[in-house]
Amino acid sequence: MQGTETDWSEVEKQIAQKAFHTAYKRETTALINEICEKINLVTEIEDVWQLHDYLSAKRHEIDGKYDFDYSAFIFVFARLIKDKWLSLDELSGIAADKLSKMSALSRM
Amino acid sequence: MQGTETDWSEVEKQIAQKAFHTAYKRETTALINEICEKINLVTEIEDVWQLHDYLSAKRHEIDGKYDFDYSAFIFVFARLIKDKWLSLDELSGIAADKLSKMSALSRM
Repeated sequence: MQGTETDWSEVEKQIAQKAFHTAYKRETTALINEICEKINLVTEIEDVWQLHDYLSAKRHEIDGKYDFDYSAFIFVFARLIKDKWLSLDELSGIAADKLSKMSALSRM
Repeated sequence: MQGTETDWSEVEKQIAQKAFHTAYKRETTALINEICEKINLVTEIEDVWQLHDYLSAKRHEIDGKYDFDYSAFIFVFARLIKDKWLSLDELSGIAADKLSKMSALSRM
């Protein structure tokens, strides 16, 4: 299921890059909003350390997920669709066999 | 200059513990307020990661500084006085030689 950069046409790459950027922007904007809400609930230093732990986990997750790597793109997009940061429609133009794999994986 | 628990009388220990707790409360409350202000300036995810880095450093610093250990108390109190989380007056009742060392160190 894994691919390489050469498995992607130039048009597919452009669509993928745009969708990737869109999902990143959505997820990071949602995180900013979430942090702003969480900070309103902080009253003790332990709440700050909990927020710090949460940010450590999210940063690790986001840094890992948005590592631009064609060999893992099918899996990455499947996860982004599953987590609702992206819809399959936004990948329209990418070859049907790739979309089909993403769709199947996103439902697992 | 380092001491042990037996170098501190029971009265001194009570004064030291209370002052230590006071400084901790002041510093952590100031940090909470600072974080609440910083979050208002967040517009991009990079700002969130900067805040995360800042919290990592502060947590490490605070965890290390407020490690309750009589052998390092002269130094810890000197630093708390230097950083204005505590005044020498709030340690009144602790032996003059200890206060004198703290005062001298706090001005270095």
